[in-house]
Amino acid sequence: MKNIPYKIHLSEDEMPKKWHNVRSRMKELPPPIIHPGTGKPCTADDLSPIFCKDLVEQELNVTDEYIDIPEEISDFYKMYRPSPLIRAYSLEKKLQTPAKLYYKFEGTNTSGSHKLNSAAAQVYYAKKQGITSLTTETGAGQWGTALSMACAFFDIDLTVYMVKVSSEQKPYRKGVIETYGAKVVPSPSETTDVGRKILQDAPGTGGSLGCAISEAIETAVKTQNCRYVLGSVLNHVVLHQSIIGMETKIALEKYGIEPDIMIGCAGGGSNLGGFISPFMADKLDGKNNIRFIAAEPVSCPSLTRGRYALDFGDTGKTTPLLMMYTLGNGFIPSPNHAGGLRFHGMSPIISKLYHDGHLEAVALEQKSVFEAAIEFARCEGTLPAPESAHAVRVALDEAVKCKETGEEKTIVFGLSGTGYFDVAAYMAYNAGNLTDYIPTDEDLAKGFATLPQ
Amino acid sequence: MKNIPYKIHLSEDEMPKKWHNVRSRMKELPPPIIHPGTGKPCTADDLSPIFCKDLVEQELNVTDEYIDIPEEISDFYKMYRPSPLIRAYSLEKKLQTPAKLYYKFEGTNTSGSHKLNSAAAQVYYAKKQGITSLTTETGAGQWGTALSMACAFFDIDLTVYMVKVSSEQKPYRKGVIETYGAKVVPSPSETTDVGRKILQDAPGTGGSLGCAISEAIETAVKTQNCRYVLGSVLNHVVLHQSIIGMETKIALEKYGIEPDIMIGCAGGGSNLGGFISPFMADKLDGKNNIRFIAAEPVSCPSLTRGRYALDFGDTGKTTPLLMMYTLGNGFIPSPNHAGGLRFHGMSPIISKLYHDGHLEAVALEQKSVFEAAIEFARCEGTLPAPESAHAVRVALDEAVKCKETGEEKTIVFGLSGTGYFDVAAYMAYNAGNLTDYIPTDEDLAKGFATLPQ
Repeated sequence: MKNIPYKIHLSEDEMPKKWHNVRSRMKELPPPIIHPGTGKPCTADDLSPIFCKDLVEQELNVTDEYIDIPEEISDFYKMYRPSPLIRAYSLEKKLQTPAKLYYKFEGTNTSGSHKLNSAAAQVYYAKKQGITSLTTETGAGQWGTALSMACAFFDIDLTVYMVKVSSEQKPYRKGVIETYGAKVVPSPSETTDVGRKILQDAPGTGGSLGCAISEAIETAVKTQNCRYVLGSVLNHVVLHQSIIGMETKIALEKYGIEPDIMIGCAGGGSNLGGFISPFMADKLDGKNNIRFIAAEPVSCPSLTRGRYALDFGDTGKTTPLLMMYTLGNGFIPSPNHAGGLRFHGMSPIISKLYHDGHLEAVALEQKSVFEAAIEFARCEGTLPAPESAHAVRVALDEAVKCKETGEEKTIVFGLSGTGYFDVAAYMAYNAGNLTDYIPTDEDLAKGFATLPQ
Repeated sequence: MKNIPYKIHLSEDEMPKKWHNVRSRMKELPPPIIHPGTGKPCTADDLSPIFCKDLVEQELNVTDEYIDIPEEISDFYKMYRPSPLIRAYSLEKKLQTPAKLYYKFEGTNTSGSHKLNSAAAQVYYAKKQGITSLTTETGAGQWGTALSMACAFFDIDLTVYMVKVSSEQKPYRKGVIETYGAKVVPSPSETTDVGRKILQDAPGTGGSLGCAISEAIETAVKTQNCRYVLGSVLNHVVLHQSIIGMETKIALEKYGIEPDIMIGCAGGGSNLGGFISPFMADKLDGKNNIRFIAAEPVSCPSLTRGRYALDFGDTGKTTPLLMMYTLGNGFIPSPNHAGGLRFHGMSPIISKLYHDGHLEAVALEQKSVFEAAIEFARCEGTLPAPESAHAVRVALDEAVKCKETGEEKTIVFGLSGTGYFDVAAYMAYNAGNLTDYIPTDEDLAKGFATLPQ
């Protein structure tokens, strides 16, 4: 094995030129997207009024393992990618663990996270199709920021429906999105039918990703030459995020490093799905025996306590039906949950892999997540996004287990973003004001009652 | 010339192992630091009660061109360095300029700026000497953040005197510093004699770097086994920041790129000084003919409107005297100046180079600076720190001149940090609430009246 530097950084020549489509190597495919009216699988024609043509094609493509990254997107990636794969030597030393810890850090761009990888792709395809405006939702604000950056670059108008509680907790996220030229609407809002209905049913609600999605879709469908874009969950988003996994694989292979465990946080699942994509494909073929672990919050435990069922992606029940682990489209996590990872459902790809036992999941309390984040920050320098810190927590736990057993495992985790914009949450943690809300069985039952019958 | 990638990224092996000391190649040295009591040059003994031993040695070293970077600091650097040197292809295309634009981006670490380069060094030397606590000042918060990160890593206590107006404008900066375990005191404060005096003389003052420095020094001198550390201005800080210039030089030489113009923002001068250090040395020997440009704000125009004089580094007149361009230690820039770059003086090295005509300086209005920042952000993705955006403004102006003349100049500028923590300033700009305050001759006269006679 070569001497491993702190930062493994691919040259421009070494960067992947294709995305990876894990579905092409799954023996059992995730069930298709269902049209809620007909009960039949959605066709490209069904999806095209909402999504751009190329994205619909990617969404439905289960056969091609590799999809070429168009040159324009590739050039955009070159401005901030490759992201570094960092050996956490300092953390290993502090933990006195024989484990080898690596993290793939996606937070060095202004959006602060991996979200830019799919934003660039989705905006490019919209531009190519002649679309002039886009709508989307954002929760923690990472997706909205990323999309506003891509829209500024490709010169497309953007309206962002931002989960109201997030827009209040994170005024600076709103400020950044507006600086890039996009319009921000706190959701639920009075600007849509679905928003007005949600406000009527639950006045004073802090909103949810599910609500914001409904509003963004309604606006896209009602606006000429406008489309909706989504920052996670869907197959084409996982595809774009596979740039993370592809780079990681090239970097690890360059140094002869074989992971034993790979960990990612899971909200909608695109970060995790993209990170593990090419590794999971090899595992399905018996070419490796990596343990894949999804880290989610106890306050929104879609994998660990959800049901594998057909559900809408939004609270307004306007999207097609996805077969996924879900808490029910009516489930809204407690506002005292600080980080992102607030979506009721989960990527159908991740859901299927989990259902078939290829992936583990753990649910974490946020206090222990912030504790891990700060331990990491003080040692490795970088302050993680609270979302990403879920992966840090699991990595630390696994590294400590290695210390106990003496095993020299190689642990690779995704550090999907920075905590630059989450300082209010860290301040709340520092002040002892962060509490967890673990949904009761009754809370979950209420969510499940909103599942389509 | 080789094909130039978007990001030029040195491998760990290519990283500089030494800092560069430009003074060793200056035909005329900057005048020595003067002891205000004796009127004679300060000796190492004079400086040691305030600063760590190794830093004092570096401060007074005018002979060695290269100084070895200790392994512990080098390892710390490897966690976040080398920083990328980025070819601004997108910006060139948008401007339709024949100029070639490069920027060295120091903002990918959590402190968000170059400040970490000197913080790591200063804390390491303190630790080596057995110092158990440090004090410092911070203005915009970049230095305080960087120092808190380094102190967390090397396990040393830290108290940060933060310019009061900054601590109010940037609560999240305070939050980050505290998350890394340091104590933040808004300055002027009631915790020091000098703070109490300033509050008495100017109740309601927003503070200044000069005040905060006085308070930090007083606390350091009065506390056992404690030292003061400064984030800019001094020779040893410029030395540590030469890591930026050394990396830039290696990267440019690797691709056969020869700069025509190099631009950096100048507050205390360490970022600019470190960025140009090895290039300036060559220019002084006639080995290149690079134009070096310092970009400063009109609201704190130490180079363009200051006097070259002996002055204290702080408002409380407690530091040794530095020969530098200064607005007078009593000068406090208007609170409606949004960015950093609020120091009344300027690095003695930069001052001497400017005085001898080796360096140009321009003063910029903040509205035009934010305009440039946003043009840059929408095109290159990265949102610059307002400080760094001063360099962006000059780079854009020079690139537009090239468009007019058809000259294919190579322009390399320092993007010393990100605007992650400056969103409030961007929001003020977006809302049309940013105004400039250009000091009147009378304002300047008041500042000059505080110069020592």
